[in-house]
Amino acid sequence: MQQKVSLTGIKPTGIPHIGNYFGAIRPALELAKAYEARYFIADYHALNSIKDPVHLKEMVYEVAAAWLAAGLNPDKVLFYRQSDVPETFDLTTILMAFTPKGLMNRAHAYKASVQENEAAGKDPDDGINMGLYTYPVLMAADILLFDTNVVPVGKDQKQHVEMTADIAQSVNHTYGKELLVVPEAMISESTQTVVGMDGRKMSKSYNNTISLFLPQKKLRKTVMKIVTNSQGIEEPKDPDSCSVFALYKLFATPEQQEKLAARYRAGGMGWGEAKQELFEVMDACLKPMREKYFSIMENKDEIDRILKEGSEKARQVASRTVARVRKAIGVNTFYL
Amino acid sequence: MQQKVSLTGIKPTGIPHIGNYFGAIRPALELAKAYEARYFIADYHALNSIKDPVHLKEMVYEVAAAWLAAGLNPDKVLFYRQSDVPETFDLTTILMAFTPKGLMNRAHAYKASVQENEAAGKDPDDGINMGLYTYPVLMAADILLFDTNVVPVGKDQKQHVEMTADIAQSVNHTYGKELLVVPEAMISESTQTVVGMDGRKMSKSYNNTISLFLPQKKLRKTVMKIVTNSQGIEEPKDPDSCSVFALYKLFATPEQQEKLAARYRAGGMGWGEAKQELFEVMDACLKPMREKYFSIMENKDEIDRILKEGSEKARQVASRTVARVRKAIGVNTFYL
Repeated sequence: MQQKVSLTGIKPTGIPHIGNYFGAIRPALELAKAYEARYFIADYHALNSIKDPVHLKEMVYEVAAAWLAAGLNPDKVLFYRQSDVPETFDLTTILMAFTPKGLMNRAHAYKASVQENEAAGKDPDDGINMGLYTYPVLMAADILLFDTNVVPVGKDQKQHVEMTADIAQSVNHTYGKELLVVPEAMISESTQTVVGMDGRKMSKSYNNTISLFLPQKKLRKTVMKIVTNSQGIEEPKDPDSCSVFALYKLFATPEQQEKLAARYRAGGMGWGEAKQELFEVMDACLKPMREKYFSIMENKDEIDRILKEGSEKARQVASRTVARVRKAIGVNTFYL
Repeated sequence: MQQKVSLTGIKPTGIPHIGNYFGAIRPALELAKAYEARYFIADYHALNSIKDPVHLKEMVYEVAAAWLAAGLNPDKVLFYRQSDVPETFDLTTILMAFTPKGLMNRAHAYKASVQENEAAGKDPDDGINMGLYTYPVLMAADILLFDTNVVPVGKDQKQHVEMTADIAQSVNHTYGKELLVVPEAMISESTQTVVGMDGRKMSKSYNNTISLFLPQKKLRKTVMKIVTNSQGIEEPKDPDSCSVFALYKLFATPEQQEKLAARYRAGGMGWGEAKQELFEVMDACLKPMREKYFSIMENKDEIDRILKEGSEKARQVASRTVARVRKAIGVNTFYL
């Protein structure tokens, strides 16, 4: 039986943090076990906010190197940049004709921006560019181009996949055949919310993240700054309400976890000691990834080579899809 | 000195009528004398309304054959289908990031649709698809891709060219260089409004058109149906308030015009006779075009060959522009 296709979009937003790794990167890489997994870096999407070419390039390299360091194997899965697969933009333009404007008006992200503007007494569309507004159509093209069956997304992105399904169904209905595979969202019901430095969910917007590739010394320094309560050394402590322990669980074996939990409950262990334990398991786990990351980043030509090869493979799939759609709508396919 | 570039967009809306010929086709073909003239058939734009592939193809062939019959020389000017130049869609996607949504909201065509919906008590965006809404961005890409200096348009399309100029300036400003040529609208101040069968302006929406390639017998029959006043044969007639004479002026030499005007004023000539005179000059003028049109339409492979060759030449220009822009924004150009 043919494997189903999964597609993961990666925003080039710089070096990931530990929350990104456990919440998104690792589960996405797991998909390769059960799916024909495809991964792309959404650089044209990033263009909506990043207008500095050097910065945009760097962000793409960083995120590519991060995923490669985290274990993405470009020989086994498709890995490419959105901008290197121009069939995406052809399909985007076609899909526009099948997307009611009302559908875009209902997009959560757009509606949130409008509400923000209205609350600030501004024009509802103030500061909103067409790239952001039409992003669900570009994303639909990204997905439909690769006959994607499932798209792993957070709850906030579920609507985009539903819109993609709507658009695909509209095209299929119009031409009376299954031109496009109708995708489904795969919501990661991960209970593994990663706690940040301050006890809240780790998130860039809270400024409480631990970057995935901090050099060893910086990592230790950062771990030492994790916010704890003010219990003294001798007091018994509750591992289950402690950020340090919550992070420890992500990196330690069950045996290590049990052992440290017992030391928490027994008392006599200060926060500094607990943090040192955390640092040690973290460092042991992150060291090989970090080393791989920096060695990849020193050889950007190699990243380019990998992504170029990926795009060539991706275009073989993409051009088949676009040819199929172009034929159906009544235009030529000779350029493909 | 290098010639300036003009670009004419052609909507594939079927066989043109006489109003299209004198109002748009002939003046557009005249541009080739003073400009490096480029012409393209906007088939992806047509996709917003034509979802039947056979119909869409036919419309493209008809309009291509019509322009070739009207004198477009594909060896001297660029002539291509929009859909065959995929660089268009890459640039469209890039330009989205530089187009404020507010700009699209102000587009006349969109605003008119919204007003119509509101007057009918419907949702403002009812029946409006994203293809129509984002059309000014696609048109901007069409224009900017070819370093176009002037775009000949009717007054109703002037705004689109101004939007294109705005978008181009925004890109240039962002990257601090003249990446895109800022185009200007060339409004045809043609006094040559062509009168229709009923005395109003010839227009599809009035259902008063005379198709450019009517077979001889049908042409005569149609001319005989032109609405006139009820003056009898013997009465002297006013050529200047007569649709028949207005059409005659388009096809006849000044001498012929003077002669017929004199017969109008003298009386003794009935409407049937005047219409026969009109038919004769029309037929003499249209016959070679009509014959060329039908001979081209019998050889659609030849149309395809011409347009394919055109697109290959067009892509040489287009890919240079897209490469220039992609380089500036910070993405690869190896696919070009």
